[in-house]
Amino acid sequence: MPPTQVPDMVVARLPLYLRTLEYLQRQGVELISSAQLAELAGVSPAQIRKDLSHFGRFGKQGTGYDVLHLRRELIRILGLDRQWPMALVGLGALGQAIMHYGGFKERGFHIAAVFDSDPDKIGKQIGDLVVMPPERIPHELPKRQIQIGIVAVPPEAAQSVANLLVRSGVRAILNYAPITLSAPPEVHVEQIDPVVHLQHMVYYLRHCPQ
Amino acid sequence: MPPTQVPDMVVARLPLYLRTLEYLQRQGVELISSAQLAELAGVSPAQIRKDLSHFGRFGKQGTGYDVLHLRRELIRILGLDRQWPMALVGLGALGQAIMHYGGFKERGFHIAAVFDSDPDKIGKQIGDLVVMPPERIPHELPKRQIQIGIVAVPPEAAQSVANLLVRSGVRAILNYAPITLSAPPEVHVEQIDPVVHLQHMVYYLRHCPQ
Repeated sequence: MPPTQVPDMVVARLPLYLRTLEYLQRQGVELISSAQLAELAGVSPAQIRKDLSHFGRFGKQGTGYDVLHLRRELIRILGLDRQWPMALVGLGALGQAIMHYGGFKERGFHIAAVFDSDPDKIGKQIGDLVVMPPERIPHELPKRQIQIGIVAVPPEAAQSVANLLVRSGVRAILNYAPITLSAPPEVHVEQIDPVVHLQHMVYYLRHCPQ
Repeated sequence: MPPTQVPDMVVARLPLYLRTLEYLQRQGVELISSAQLAELAGVSPAQIRKDLSHFGRFGKQGTGYDVLHLRRELIRILGLDRQWPMALVGLGALGQAIMHYGGFKERGFHIAAVFDSDPDKIGKQIGDLVVMPPERIPHELPKRQIQIGIVAVPPEAAQSVANLLVRSGVRAILNYAPITLSAPPEVHVEQIDPVVHLQHMVYYLRHCPQ
């Protein structure tokens, strides 16, 4: 099946499987049954088999999945066998936390440019990067072949920052602001929304009182 | 169907529908077809109808869903018709961003206690709250009837903080640290993992080059 015809909900689960395989590899696990992998990833064994079947045959009847092999295949399928540079816009408390987030680099991503409109921050050195004003976005992003933007500005500024990123060639936006961003259909937008996770868990607290 | 027998993947999508309905309500939309609601929420119309059918009948043939009514029903189903107090552990850049996050209160949650092990932070006033040392967790959480913990400490401290929260009565943990936490089966853990969202979007960048 051509990769663009795989249902998006299947694609959305692949990173969860990959994260689970990375965890297993760190634990020294070499082989895992689809039942165990499914339980750790929070899906049913049938789901994981069906999801992976879109991309080929990975498990062996009776022995399960080879953790290292399946991890490598998922990295290839997701396009993570290279580093993806990202632009971060917004260097408040949240932006600074994102700058120092330890989970990006080994999983395929790094921040290659950082922007803030605060004159006190512009020109400051953070690691290898110098903070630039947002006006530089249309120039800097194409120059650095950046196609991914992270929006970490206050909600009232988020849409105009997203528009600027899209005009500057960004095709994927990770939005930390608590608002729903509009973008052209060819631009992918995902929102980091802690409340969605809280609401999901609270369902069980409410319905299974102790 | 008893609510605990609804598949977890269905429960996980309810907050996304709720967020979409909140957006529609702010836009002044009163009625919406399942096709439109599905597109905005990023699922198929069949999926949304099937998901909601676990909880009753909400749409009307030909007119679609009443946005306000469906929103109220989802709030009731998810258990958000009350405020849920939370404990935040960790007041680095990330913890401070979480403290100031604007999306909690109107969606059912508030931070009711905050902890950090840094002597320079303990005793400081942040809004209505005074920063307490982690040793106070077992005393303060039951006293404030807190069942939800947010882990915003460095990865090497995250598991021991999670253990302490669980011993203190927490039944749901939102983990911002880039590690997979272990917890007893009756405790719900969700991880804020920006890389999972990035990897999901990158699949399309890789497979649909411009």
